[in-house]
Amino acid sequence: MKFRLSPEDLWVGRWTRALRHTRAPGLRHGIGHDCAVLASPPPGSDLVFKTDAVVEGVHFLRSTSAPLVGRKALARALSDLAAAGAKPLAALVTAGCPDKKTAVRLQSVYRGFARAARHWRVAIVGGETVRTRQLLLSVSLLGTVPRRQSPHRGGARPGHLLFVTGTLGGSWPHRHLTFTPRLREGQWLARKKIPSAMMDLSDGLGADLPRLARMSGIGFQLHPQKLPLAPGATIRQAVTRGEDYELLFTVPPGQAARLRKTWPFSTRLTEIGVCLTGRSGFQTGGLHLQGYDHLR
Amino acid sequence: MKFRLSPEDLWVGRWTRALRHTRAPGLRHGIGHDCAVLASPPPGSDLVFKTDAVVEGVHFLRSTSAPLVGRKALARALSDLAAAGAKPLAALVTAGCPDKKTAVRLQSVYRGFARAARHWRVAIVGGETVRTRQLLLSVSLLGTVPRRQSPHRGGARPGHLLFVTGTLGGSWPHRHLTFTPRLREGQWLARKKIPSAMMDLSDGLGADLPRLARMSGIGFQLHPQKLPLAPGATIRQAVTRGEDYELLFTVPPGQAARLRKTWPFSTRLTEIGVCLTGRSGFQTGGLHLQGYDHLR
Repeated sequence: MKFRLSPEDLWVGRWTRALRHTRAPGLRHGIGHDCAVLASPPPGSDLVFKTDAVVEGVHFLRSTSAPLVGRKALARALSDLAAAGAKPLAALVTAGCPDKKTAVRLQSVYRGFARAARHWRVAIVGGETVRTRQLLLSVSLLGTVPRRQSPHRGGARPGHLLFVTGTLGGSWPHRHLTFTPRLREGQWLARKKIPSAMMDLSDGLGADLPRLARMSGIGFQLHPQKLPLAPGATIRQAVTRGEDYELLFTVPPGQAARLRKTWPFSTRLTEIGVCLTGRSGFQTGGLHLQGYDHLR
Repeated sequence: MKFRLSPEDLWVGRWTRALRHTRAPGLRHGIGHDCAVLASPPPGSDLVFKTDAVVEGVHFLRSTSAPLVGRKALARALSDLAAAGAKPLAALVTAGCPDKKTAVRLQSVYRGFARAARHWRVAIVGGETVRTRQLLLSVSLLGTVPRRQSPHRGGARPGHLLFVTGTLGGSWPHRHLTFTPRLREGQWLARKKIPSAMMDLSDGLGADLPRLARMSGIGFQLHPQKLPLAPGATIRQAVTRGEDYELLFTVPPGQAARLRKTWPFSTRLTEIGVCLTGRSGFQTGGLHLQGYDHLR
């Protein structure tokens, strides 16, 4: 019998051709095998593990530039790694593909993946394909962080100050596709052991800040007039729009002066409130807290 | 402002309640944080990284028992880890949910995840939710394997013998939901350094054997009459049906006697053919090789 590639294997070959130049240090085997196998990171590291998906009609449109769809899918997952203070190591991509037209489009999506992977030095080492009713891209990321130094959402205490990087409310129409995940800022903050809690803002401050508060068992006072607004954005948009991909973190008051003095980035840094006891609730100066909800 | 959980946070809380009793060794923080953070495995290990998705209408039906959907989603990814000779460490679950009815159903799906995770000793340490047009569950798995001992698809050489575990063609109507991933068998084979190449059979021997051959640059001779048929299955079904989740592996002829003599499992072990040079092509005794294709 003469061997012919199946349609699935043909398409996967076409999509992943763009990924040939992204390589992970210590990669034993990657694309084309059942699993990706990598050398363990050096001792003294913890592993950081994350998965994030983008779906047509929710996170991008049929008319969105295909390479920017790949870029966004990878950058969103990298933003979560930034919040954990982690350095990316390797990624897997799951492509949900409804039809042949989308399969053609996926070639450009993967070129966006490849470019973004080179830029942020993360290798795409495998993945898989499924038939879905709408284009979907799910990225799994593996990263490393110095042992026991990864910030999380649960360490904020009453009296700690609330900070955000960058500006809020400016995700539409373009920035949600072209934002820079705050990897360098997150890694620096974790290394300096400054944040008592940290997360990235993906669903908007109005949805995400209450999540951090709940995991830490605290209340907070938010100063709406202090929010760093993106050009043209209103306070309401800064709270509800989502997709800012900035870092939200809390800092013990004794660390705030050191943070402001040694912050080495051009990225804006703004104090937006203070943590209170859990019983104090959420004090927002009358601002209604709401963000993006995937199941509303 | 009084704090109310958003619908998304409410549902995620309900789904993941079942997972509270699955814990990973060395877990620093898991569900509810931006990323899962785990202690690195001991030196001398490689990391194994895999992602696998199941979709309603493709891998299960609306009428399929919900806990079995969760079980299948996890077991499929574990089957890939088995092919890499790996031990599972931790998993992330991405749930694509179209509507409230499905959100209710997902509570039972997660109970299936929790039961399967306990059974196979893998902790589900995080994940996420997206709005999709059909129910979709994507599982990301992290595992470990002794350094440089993970088999892959590229090591088969002419003269090596082809083996499969278990029986083929019996996936429908039930076994595709209740199969046992061959973790113990895969780990044993890797530890004994017996396979020159190994993979799991998910799309059927007709689709998967050519993939192994292509990655190894070999041809093969398949003996259709030697295929271990599941009760009631025809040779054609054993080749094309898919979802067997058995191990397919190649063994240098000098190792075959040792394999047969020391195989410690009740799982059936069958020699089904031999590897040839790439130029010899695929010799199948007239049998047409075809398997499941996700993009046909």
